Amino acid sequence: MRMYDIIQKKRDGGALTEAEIKWFIEGYTAGDIPDYQVAALCMAIYFQGMNLEETTALTFAVRDSGERLNFSDIKGLRVDKHSTGGVGDKTSLVVTPIVASLGVKVAKMSGRGLGHTGGTIDKLEAIPGFCTDLPVEKFKKIVNEVGIAIVGQNEKLAPADKLLYALRDVTATVDSLPLIVSSIMGKKLAADDDCIVLDVKTGSGSFMKTQEKSRELAEWMVAIGKRAGKRMRALITDMDRPLGNAIGNSLEVVEAIETLQGKGPADLTELCVALAAHILNLAEKGDLAQCEKMARGAIEDGSALKMFADMVSAQGGDESWILSPEKFPKAAYSHEVKAQKSGYIVGVDTESYGVASLLLGAGRNTKEDVIDFTAGVYLQAKTGDRVQKGDVIAVLYSNKKTGFTAAEQRLLAATRIEKTPPKVAPLVLDIVE
Amino acid sequence: MRMYDIIQKKRDGGALTEAEIKWFIEGYTAGDIPDYQVAALCMAIYFQGMNLEETTALTFAVRDSGERLNFSDIKGLRVDKHSTGGVGDKTSLVVTPIVASLGVKVAKMSGRGLGHTGGTIDKLEAIPGFCTDLPVEKFKKIVNEVGIAIVGQNEKLAPADKLLYALRDVTATVDSLPLIVSSIMGKKLAADDDCIVLDVKTGSGSFMKTQEKSRELAEWMVAIGKRAGKRMRALITDMDRPLGNAIGNSLEVVEAIETLQGKGPADLTELCVALAAHILNLAEKGDLAQCEKMARGAIEDGSALKMFADMVSAQGGDESWILSPEKFPKAAYSHEVKAQKSGYIVGVDTESYGVASLLLGAGRNTKEDVIDFTAGVYLQAKTGDRVQKGDVIAVLYSNKKTGFTAAEQRLLAATRIEKTPPKVAPLVLDIVE
Repeated sequence: MRMYDIIQKKRDGGALTEAEIKWFIEGYTAGDIPDYQVAALCMAIYFQGMNLEETTALTFAVRDSGERLNFSDIKGLRVDKHSTGGVGDKTSLVVTPIVASLGVKVAKMSGRGLGHTGGTIDKLEAIPGFCTDLPVEKFKKIVNEVGIAIVGQNEKLAPADKLLYALRDVTATVDSLPLIVSSIMGKKLAADDDCIVLDVKTGSGSFMKTQEKSRELAEWMVAIGKRAGKRMRALITDMDRPLGNAIGNSLEVVEAIETLQGKGPADLTELCVALAAHILNLAEKGDLAQCEKMARGAIEDGSALKMFADMVSAQGGDESWILSPEKFPKAAYSHEVKAQKSGYIVGVDTESYGVASLLLGAGRNTKEDVIDFTAGVYLQAKTGDRVQKGDVIAVLYSNKKTGFTAAEQRLLAATRIEKTPPKVAPLVLDIVE
Repeated sequence: MRMYDIIQKKRDGGALTEAEIKWFIEGYTAGDIPDYQVAALCMAIYFQGMNLEETTALTFAVRDSGERLNFSDIKGLRVDKHSTGGVGDKTSLVVTPIVASLGVKVAKMSGRGLGHTGGTIDKLEAIPGFCTDLPVEKFKKIVNEVGIAIVGQNEKLAPADKLLYALRDVTATVDSLPLIVSSIMGKKLAADDDCIVLDVKTGSGSFMKTQEKSRELAEWMVAIGKRAGKRMRALITDMDRPLGNAIGNSLEVVEAIETLQGKGPADLTELCVALAAHILNLAEKGDLAQCEKMARGAIEDGSALKMFADMVSAQGGDESWILSPEKFPKAAYSHEVKAQKSGYIVGVDTESYGVASLLLGAGRNTKEDVIDFTAGVYLQAKTGDRVQKGDVIAVLYSNKKTGFTAAEQRLLAATRIEKTPPKVAPLVLDIVE
């Protein structure tokens, strides 16, 4: 086989065979195929696409490019939950303890923040002592004994994805359905969970800006997961507004704890319960209504919060911070953002909210940047709320003084206030199974 | 500026600015922009194209990526002639001595064989002692004193093209109009000729398979040459059949000499006279009819042949071989290809004729291959000719025995023989000026 022929075939709109896809992923991972040929192929895929067969083959080739985990010594059904990334999205911190407290094993690998979106691993690292880099055996032991563990992406899993993503990131080929699908699912399938629930975000704060594109992404991921023998479900959820009120790492952990305490924001609570219910339903714990009730019960009786504290403790973190979240330090500086006029917040550019949080130090511009865990944005008014001119709509937090002006400008420019109230869309827009 | 933004802009169908194009060519030539980003951009250009403004900017950036020659110390009008490459195309060896013998200065840089097409430099090197690698001062001195010199591409000219071409060649991005135009014209404009006549081939033996595509290529090259202040003309000529009867380096040199002696094949003679007439006309030697008469006269009175011998001598070659072409050695082995049935040759796949010649050793599969100058194909019947089953239609030559079977099969498969005679198209199909 020749890489040239594979590039030319895709360039001319042909469908690559499973053998061709396997050959190029193996060759690229081994360092035998140069970046420039893969870059040309990715751009050809950007324009010509890939059908479901090709995308399945690509996903499986990525999955098989490194080690694969074996969770067979974990007792009970293992579930994983994955979000395509949003602003203020701390659902994993709430949903996974809920379902774990109800007897479903959570063996989860999460990512770090990417662009304007936060990452679960960064958030967990805001808890002092919490270790996100456990050896596999220790990870599985905690899942078995506690019921849940969340670690960072294992470097030995799906190395082809790491190479491909880094290349796509600098060649403007990230935004391609088959490449996104194979990247997410290639990593997921290298782990050994029985059920995977996907939270596919849609709207201004997500990578997929339209519901149609999000649904297509969800359908492909569900189809490929099923082909790999997994129980799959995907929720298409709204990211035209930030989720909850907190954006930024320790702000979000505190909000997740409050949600587990039963006093979280309504939107966040609603989505977490919905996701938990779908996971429980997939794990055959009952019908959807029963599962939703169970999820609410786990919040009400404190068992979900206890599960979160137990996981933190098992992974080396200080569980007293979970039980007394006032221990999380506040940033050295804060700044109030005030409404410029009176009316209803009719819509926001969610991505700009994420960028504002980045500007305050909550994320990374380069891989080397150190995160300010206390930095971020706390929203006091959201889409649908009525505000008076001069009302505080958000409080900005940072340990450096320099980011406030830019973050405030971003936030104000991203917030549309009008005379008449908007129609607010439901959070869960669609379900793919 | 960021290369990422340039790739993304082109990917999304935007037109790049002159500053963006200049920046990326300079950065790539300097080694600051990696191959993988340029590969992605080339593929995006393949799909989205470039308008004439962008292509002009790209051509000028390629031209300016290295040294530029200064021919101002050459007296009189300097002309260059370029062919986009064909099979059996030895016109440069005939046309340039004709026009030089009529007082037009020929300062020409030529290429080597590429794929199934031969190159003028390879052909000239079949003449013992002929040096195609002269210092610029020596080159200009010969042009001034003799009237003509032909050398290989100067390595210091348009280095960006060398880098780009090598990259396009392995990323399936050769076949893109703006990239072809900027490659050819970027090199041409780095030299310092006053007039450029282009022979744009069309049909099964050329890189452009349709007359429409060839005309578009010609129009863009003429337009960009004019913007650079050159007098330009392009002939669209037929490459649905090999030109002349000889394919292969010394076979072609001998046929060129025979044509300069006035006894060459009719098709080759016709095209050479036409090209020479257009060059002379562009150099204001008279109207087209007068120029054609002058060109024929230069063959008839022997002055063109003498000019060729003088150039060979000035460039270190043995001119006695030009005056006595029987000195060119024959290959050790030959093989006759016979018609499989009776009828008219109604059409041939010209590219396969070129490949057959390659298989016999007349070209290179890799840059390191050594050319067998004696190898090639001599046609005894061409499109339009009537043949009887068993008639010799071609003789194959090679110094190795191993290529004959494959070459014969290629040739026979590429030759269509039918009952009724075909309509043979004229050689010069169109003129762009």
